[in-house]
Amino acid sequence: MRPYELSLAAAADAIRARRVSPVELVDSVLDRIEQVEPHLRAYVTVTAERARRSAREAEREAAAGRFRSPLHGIPVGLKDLIDVAGTATTASSRVRAGHRAETDSAVAARLTAAGAVLVGKTHTHEFAYGLTTPQTHNAWDRDRVAGGSSGGSAVAVAAGTATFALGTDTGGSIRVPAALNGVVGLKPTYGLVPRHGVTSLSWSLDHVGPITRTVEDAALVLPVLTGHAPGDPAGLPNHRPPSEGDLSGLRIGVPRNYYFDRVGPDVEAAVRRAIDRLEALGARLVEVEIPMTRYIQAIQWGLMVPEATAYHEKALRDTAGLYAADVRILLEAGALMTAGDYLRAQRARTLMRQAWARMLQEVDVIAAPAVPATAVRAGEDSLTWPDGTVESVSDAYVRLSAPANITGVPSLSLPVGRDRQGMPIGMQLLGRPFGEASLLRVGHAYERTEPARELAPAV
Amino acid sequence: MRPYELSLAAAADAIRARRVSPVELVDSVLDRIEQVEPHLRAYVTVTAERARRSAREAEREAAAGRFRSPLHGIPVGLKDLIDVAGTATTASSRVRAGHRAETDSAVAARLTAAGAVLVGKTHTHEFAYGLTTPQTHNAWDRDRVAGGSSGGSAVAVAAGTATFALGTDTGGSIRVPAALNGVVGLKPTYGLVPRHGVTSLSWSLDHVGPITRTVEDAALVLPVLTGHAPGDPAGLPNHRPPSEGDLSGLRIGVPRNYYFDRVGPDVEAAVRRAIDRLEALGARLVEVEIPMTRYIQAIQWGLMVPEATAYHEKALRDTAGLYAADVRILLEAGALMTAGDYLRAQRARTLMRQAWARMLQEVDVIAAPAVPATAVRAGEDSLTWPDGTVESVSDAYVRLSAPANITGVPSLSLPVGRDRQGMPIGMQLLGRPFGEASLLRVGHAYERTEPARELAPAV
Repeated sequence: MRPYELSLAAAADAIRARRVSPVELVDSVLDRIEQVEPHLRAYVTVTAERARRSAREAEREAAAGRFRSPLHGIPVGLKDLIDVAGTATTASSRVRAGHRAETDSAVAARLTAAGAVLVGKTHTHEFAYGLTTPQTHNAWDRDRVAGGSSGGSAVAVAAGTATFALGTDTGGSIRVPAALNGVVGLKPTYGLVPRHGVTSLSWSLDHVGPITRTVEDAALVLPVLTGHAPGDPAGLPNHRPPSEGDLSGLRIGVPRNYYFDRVGPDVEAAVRRAIDRLEALGARLVEVEIPMTRYIQAIQWGLMVPEATAYHEKALRDTAGLYAADVRILLEAGALMTAGDYLRAQRARTLMRQAWARMLQEVDVIAAPAVPATAVRAGEDSLTWPDGTVESVSDAYVRLSAPANITGVPSLSLPVGRDRQGMPIGMQLLGRPFGEASLLRVGHAYERTEPARELAPAV
Repeated sequence: MRPYELSLAAAADAIRARRVSPVELVDSVLDRIEQVEPHLRAYVTVTAERARRSAREAEREAAAGRFRSPLHGIPVGLKDLIDVAGTATTASSRVRAGHRAETDSAVAARLTAAGAVLVGKTHTHEFAYGLTTPQTHNAWDRDRVAGGSSGGSAVAVAAGTATFALGTDTGGSIRVPAALNGVVGLKPTYGLVPRHGVTSLSWSLDHVGPITRTVEDAALVLPVLTGHAPGDPAGLPNHRPPSEGDLSGLRIGVPRNYYFDRVGPDVEAAVRRAIDRLEALGARLVEVEIPMTRYIQAIQWGLMVPEATAYHEKALRDTAGLYAADVRILLEAGALMTAGDYLRAQRARTLMRQAWARMLQEVDVIAAPAVPATAVRAGEDSLTWPDGTVESVSDAYVRLSAPANITGVPSLSLPVGRDRQGMPIGMQLLGRPFGEASLLRVGHAYERTEPARELAPAV
């Protein structure tokens, strides 16, 4: 196995045991980038020189017996909304031409302090305002969308051009591309991971979180992002989920409405199979009724659209012509919304958060599809469901993600198989606020029942 | 002492000991209403027949040894925004002509279950959207404003035409009239008291709470409003604050900025004297810096104005001409606000709530003036401060109240003396979310150092 193929957990073990050096690992990832990046376009910028320098420093520390965290010497890609001092944060937009961040974002600073090695900035749907990331190709089929908005991060992790990555998630932007590329994405509880220095799409819905190859890997990244492993010189704390896969005593909610409505048959079958697997591991399945579902779409868009416009107010006045047309139209629509429209969305969100809190008293975790369909072909705008409904790709991709953004509850997407075309399918686990440990426990128990996952092929 | 003169605590003791019957008490209050109501106009409707019937029922229960709560047989006035089944909720507005509530509001139902006797619905500034309550006269000087918007409730309690009352508080509407009429007003923590069946001014700022003659009385009403004393047949739980007045170990924050800026000299002197009294009782005084003060006014109005407009949207289309001019102008202004204006206010409020939470880790209670000036003469629109600043009466009356509405922290106003014209002055105690017990403890310790308070005179 070449170093770029290692999961984060495996790479961390190998570095710790001095079987692989951070320099070898980073060189292997940079070679992989040279090989596949021309076909995938996951990166805005590859910071090869900086990465080699950091890797040498990590190697010196390792030689001296110093390991800053489980991320010591591990190559990471950051969605290009995340400030890194001295580099541009382009947001994959012409509006940001000539940008240069003065200071590190909170998460970049924490990753650096933990010894992670930045290999580059990854593509986002422009300013995170879309679900496809048109610059980037799906890791499994170049003719299909990467998903978005953290498309570059998910594709890089799936293709072996980053051992892990960070994304942001406002209406599914971590989980959707993770699901469509067969990797793991975690949207943490609202407020758990600091957003300072991360370009905003929507202040009340934005989250920063990890995209990784395995659930175990996500469990290694999260404590660094929350600031719980600040380079402890006393050794590596063990943040890994329990390795025994017994789920006895856990109540897993299976939605009787909403999450399995208008979902592709292969997606539904794969997710139901995965849920049966959780039951076989000892979990008790409990049917749950998802509350207030007919308000979800109106709340999500009713919050996101005006919040995005408020953030872009000045640039819209000065440089509207520099935005891609799809993004500009959404931003201009936001200026037409009244305070009344927005406050009705906020009111309804408050009620929905309370209704979810009541539902989540009955179960520990809810299991559901992450995205109703796998990756569509690039350029496809809509999906037609068997009942004749036509749904825009954006609406379809946001639909099952939005509840976790509106309510702020944590949500983990993990791969649970492929459809007939070989495209990855994601299952979503949702939990109580600050209940990440339960999601990681269930997700890890599931992934231990799977054969080891392969990386996406080179072409 | 005639029964209408009794505080709630004294009346409850007298009823429990069968020294006063609920019928005598209600008759005494109804007589007092006949005597002073023509001069004060605190009530929209006096429900004399209903009150006598309820009192007779309470008397029968008392004779059988049944006391539903400390409120058993106690006359109450409800601000006319609070639904009582079978009566109009006029909101003191022509817009509500012909209104009839079908069911009790949550608080009315709880008061009834606790044995309280409704004597009438009290005047509000129209739809709670103002700080003076122009229909009603100050209990201490007929030529001065009652304060608002719960002006009728405060005047009734001050004049002995209700033993206690309920008000609502969106930007000071319980505390301002309580302070201006020399009674006690408690704005509980946001969300603690249910608002179901109470006409809304502003969904994210509205609170329901008690107006009483003493802090001890407020402590008797609050558990009924929160549902903690649902007519326990086993006896009267004792919700009274500890009767010993020792405040040792308590840290009381004294603001070094904002709360004493542009405050009348008599108000400042009275409040500082009261704070010295708290120190003499054993509390430790700690200077605190109030955060983000230059945003308070913009946030309060930025939330309230569009939220009020959203509530009145339909009536504004159909019957705009029926509103008083001051209220109609504010409602129409709200329609011009964009989603961006409103969400900036919500964002800033989130930051302010966090900053207050940090400040409130350092102290248990903050003590400050409730209102910067005493009651102005009716018809006066503005105040001129010694530094030459001219401030509208609304802005001045909202200024020191708004932080508790924006952040949701509880705030208790209690009388601490008179100005040179004999008009009452209020001190405000602010605490941590759900820290009502500390406010009641400090307020009660203070009031035990005062001579017994008189009711406002008959004319």
